[in-house]
Order: sequence, then structure tokens, then C-alpha cells
Amino acid sequence: MSENKTNISELGEFGLIDHLTSKFELKNRNSLLGVGDDAAVIDISEEEAMLVSTDLLVEGIHFNLMYMPLKHLGYKAVAVNVSDICAMNGTAEQITVSLAVSSRFPLEALEELYEGIHAACAFYNVDLVGGDTTSSVSGLAINITVIGRAKKNEITYRSGANEFDLLVVTGDLGAAYMGLQVLEREKEVFKANPNIQPDLDGHDYIIERQLKPEARKDVIGFLKELDVVPTAMIDISDGLASEILHICKASKVGCYVYDEKIPIDAKTSMTAIDFNLDPGTCALNGGEDYELLFTVKQADFDKIKGNPHMTVIGHITNEQDGVYFIDKNGSAITLRAQGWNHFD
Amino acid sequence: MSENKTNISELGEFGLIDHLTSKFELKNRNSLLGVGDDAAVIDISEEEAMLVSTDLLVEGIHFNLMYMPLKHLGYKAVAVNVSDICAMNGTAEQITVSLAVSSRFPLEALEELYEGIHAACAFYNVDLVGGDTTSSVSGLAINITVIGRAKKNEITYRSGANEFDLLVVTGDLGAAYMGLQVLEREKEVFKANPNIQPDLDGHDYIIERQLKPEARKDVIGFLKELDVVPTAMIDISDGLASEILHICKASKVGCYVYDEKIPIDAKTSMTAIDFNLDPGTCALNGGEDYELLFTVKQADFDKIKGNPHMTVIGHITNEQDGVYFIDKNGSAITLRAQGWNHFD
Repeated sequence: MSENKTNISELGEFGLIDHLTSKFELKNRNSLLGVGDDAAVIDISEEEAMLVSTDLLVEGIHFNLMYMPLKHLGYKAVAVNVSDICAMNGTAEQITVSLAVSSRFPLEALEELYEGIHAACAFYNVDLVGGDTTSSVSGLAINITVIGRAKKNEITYRSGANEFDLLVVTGDLGAAYMGLQVLEREKEVFKANPNIQPDLDGHDYIIERQLKPEARKDVIGFLKELDVVPTAMIDISDGLASEILHICKASKVGCYVYDEKIPIDAKTSMTAIDFNLDPGTCALNGGEDYELLFTVKQADFDKIKGNPHMTVIGHITNEQDGVYFIDKNGSAITLRAQGWNHFD
Repeated sequence: MSENKTNISELGEFGLIDHLTSKFELKNRNSLLGVGDDAAVIDISEEEAMLVSTDLLVEGIHFNLMYMPLKHLGYKAVAVNVSDICAMNGTAEQITVSLAVSSRFPLEALEELYEGIHAACAFYNVDLVGGDTTSSVSGLAINITVIGRAKKNEITYRSGANEFDLLVVTGDLGAAYMGLQVLEREKEVFKANPNIQPDLDGHDYIIERQLKPEARKDVIGFLKELDVVPTAMIDISDGLASEILHICKASKVGCYVYDEKIPIDAKTSMTAIDFNLDPGTCALNGGEDYELLFTVKQADFDKIKGNPHMTVIGHITNEQDGVYFIDKNGSAITLRAQGWNHFD
């Protein structure tokens, strides 16, 4: 090991991946796309390609078993992977599951975890085809690789957005983040006095968004029914702002996003205000919504207009125009990502 | 969590995987084979299938950074995955790499790890197409998923061995295990007195077999040149005995394996004797050789006869005849696996 020591947190998660993988080139003609989108793309036939994505969830970093039931963890681990395939406009078909688990987990705990995995496989029509199970020195880590498939001419990359395209988001945002805040608050209360029952009343929706997020496979179906192929797409795992910047960077475009258009559920807003947080900021920078963010040609507006699952929140501009957040007073602020960085 | 608590070590690694995945059924018509072989098989075209396998390596369980340089770890993590694709008689083409790493690792350490991954990708002509990098509470864990491809009529499963087939192994066995013994011995010496330099003289071969194993991609090439499609195949990760039993169980056959035929390098034998170990036992139960074990029809014997990379070590019998190890005195002993169980 060299004498120079650079702390990995200096690069951030995306900077670190870019740095470590920059020397790698694709040499197989079947490797159509490597690192840098929601999934890799592998050639399999004239019409179709395979999509591959992988996610690693680590105890104490991505989940806390004090309030995350193992069944939910299993479900969520599958859902977030399926979400990556949705973000490419594809259909998830198979997963592999690798598990590192310390001996403090009894068999019954792993059965609960696999019940959640099984429920998600059933819901998303995905097959468990392989895996690896090993012990760990401490804690639980679960790595899922998902394999999907798409028609080549329907695959949506982050890089396909063009000037004048509309920016669309599915569902509502910020709920998973506010659910996490409620769970964290009740965890602290419980730690201070284990006799007090957690007060989760009225927070069912936002807690479910945190503990049992769903991949928007339904939206991929709606888009096909509407005959809309987005020009670019990404799923919202790190927060809306971060994902908008990913699309803009990959597509070499700018963007205007309108605060007043961002869909936020009333329960999310009320809880945010309770916590003295700005609901808009929660929607913009709270992560783990697993909604889809995509761009469509203006010509497709009539097809998605009024669809209860989709909201137009802005439009794509020229790269030189920059990426701006237009607040409720009409002021334009340069958009910055304040999403998750597990290395901070 | 249920009140019943069963220790996971009671099931062993294979028992645990079987138990946890027994409820899962394959529902997608493209999922040709799921859990239970060296790789899953996914349909992609009339002629070809995709092969998928995944392996999770955890610090303190699968490797010890005291004597495993990070560059070697990166190389080995790729090689053991490529080995799984070789075991299906396929060609590895892509990998994804997931990394959980604690903040005690500086950037330069991860660069070393990725140098090893890069070297293995170059050697095996495999593309890095995706991954995930996250922090961990403690230690390092690396999960690699490998994607390969094969002609459907050339894929070799564990289940294809038939009575009278010959049992063949590549290379020599037990070296990686003896390399580990030397490294462990020197680690203890070093812990007792850090001023003593490790004494690894004369152990280059066996240490390299432990620290830098190679997938036998070359053998897959030789088999194609010889026009031999094995009837069954598996790679030797857990020890020869364990893998023979896997083939026999999956193929519903018995087997006779001859002690005197098992290929052991002289350096392995000498080191084993030094350690008061029986070389045959090391070859039979030492793991991590990553050689290939396969069965061929007797009609193919002339094609592999005299090949320096392949040794016939036994033959397949009827299931009722059982699985026997014939020692140098001609005594038949029921073969048992004493391979690795990370949950012990």
C-alpha cells in the first residue's frame, strides 16, 4: 500500500466510482453500456438487450434493524433493484441474492428476510436464480443483482434528454424521507425509555414509503399503453435534485424545475412542518422515493396530461442555460444536490 | 421475529441455501435454471443462453488482509467468478462489482483493489459494466456478479454424469490449501514477534495458488479444440470430495475415485508432510483450487489421454453402488466432504 492516504469521503460516492472505474474500457462487443446509468446494457439479439444492475445494502448504513423488520428489508432490497430496471424502461426478470450474516441472526430471522424477498419476487414477477450465503464478522449485508430485458429501441438512458423536452416525475416525493425522520425520532424516544410505545399514529403512509417502497413497474406499463418512450429516465433514489443533475449532466442539457409543481403528499407536508422542515426541501433532497424521473418530447404531452401518476415539473433547456430551481416567488436558484453520501 | 431460534450453523452453508430458497419457483419462461449449479441459465436466443453467478467475499471470513494484498484480492474475486462460468463450459463476458468498505481504507487501498480487478478483467477478457460502492461499519466486503454466455447444447450441468463416464480433474490439487497453511503459520510467527521476517522461501508455488488462483478458462478452450463436451462439470472451490458428491447427487450416480490417481504437486506434498498432514487428504478436502472437475463419455478418453492439464481420477457408477474413495491399499472408503463451512 502506498504511503499517500486520501480519505475516500473526499470524493463522494459518485466521484469514487468514477475514479475507480475510469481505467476500465469495454472490450466485448456484447457490452453495449457499462458503468454510468441505472443498469448496464448487454446485447443478446437483434431486437433485445439484457439489463443488469446491482445494489448492496449494509446494516448500520442503509438500514437499521431496530425499526426495519427483516421481511421489509428483503422486500425493499428487491424493489430498489427492480426500480433500476424500470428506470431503463425494461422488465426485471431475475435476481441473485448474496447475503453476509453474523451468527447473531438465527435461522428464523433469515426466513423472515427471505419471506420479504419472496413476496417482492411474486409481486414483480421476478425469479430468484442464484446467490451466495456466507457468515460475516458483524452485521448483515445483502447484495442483489437484477437482470432485466428490454427492446433495444425502447431503452431509456440518462443521456437522451433534449432541449424543450418536458421533465416528468411519478407519484409524490419526500414521503420516504419524512417516514425515516419519524422512525428515527421514535427510536430515540425508545432508547431513552423502552417502556414508551412508539407513536406512529397517522404516519402510516410515510412510514410505508420508507419501509416498503415500490418500484414503479406499473408506470412502465402505463407508458407502453400510452405509446410513450421517454427520451431519458432515472429512478429517484438519492433525491430529486441529485437525479435531475444526473440527467442534465449525462444529456448535456440544462433544466428549469418549478417548486410549485413538485408533487408532495399532504401527510408529508404536515409531518415536515411538524419537524420544522421545508416540505419542498424534503421533496428535493430526501432520498429513497424510488419514483421515476423522465423526460418526454413536447409532442407526447397530450398523452400524459392529466395522468394521476405523472406530473410535469419542468422543462429541459440548453446546457448553457444551467440547471435552475424556480421557487414559489419566481426566483431562479442554481440547483444543487444535497442527497445521500454514505461516505460523509 | 419468532421465539424459536435455530442456529444457522446447524444447517451448513448448502443446507441453509436449500432451506431458504426451497419455496422459490421459476415463473419466467426465460429462467432456464435457477439455484443449484455453478451458474444460473437464462434464455437469450435459439442458440445461446446467458450464465449468471455471484460470489460474496467478506474480510475475516474469506480473506485476511494481513497476508492477502488488496491487488491479489481484487484479482482473486474476479477469477473465482470466472471459474463458475468455466464450470458451465461458458465464456465470461461481464462483471459487476459491489464494494462495502469502512473509512479505515484510504483511496489508495481501493485503487490497489481495482488494479487487481482490472488485471483479471484484462486477462480473462471480461468487462466491468456496473457496481455499487458504499461504506461499511467495519471491514471490507466485495460481491462480484459475473455474466457469461454459452451455446445451449454445450452447457455442462452438474446433473449430466452417467454410469461408466470417466471422472477427470484439471491441474493439481491441495496447493491452495497448503499455501494457506504456510501463510497462517507465518502470520502467527509475525504476531509473536513482528521483527521476524516471514519465511516463505520455496513456497512460491503454493502461496501463489492461494493468493492468485486462476480460473481454468484455458481448459474450456482445450475442450473445444478437442471437440469434447463434458457430460457434467463443476469447479473445485470447496474441495474435491465435496464437488464429487455434488456431481453424484445432482446426476443421481455413484463414483469410484482412486487416491493414487489424484494429481498433487511435489511442493504441495512436501509441505503437507512438513505440517504432519496427509497430502491426499489436503487434495481431497483442501479448498480453493479452482480447478475443474468433469465427467466425459468413455468414447472421449482417447481425446484427453495424455493431456498434461487433465487427469482421469475415477469413473461413474450406478447410484446404488455409492460414492467410494479407493485408497492406495485398494480399500474402498465411503467418500465424505470435509470442505469449508463458513458457518461452523
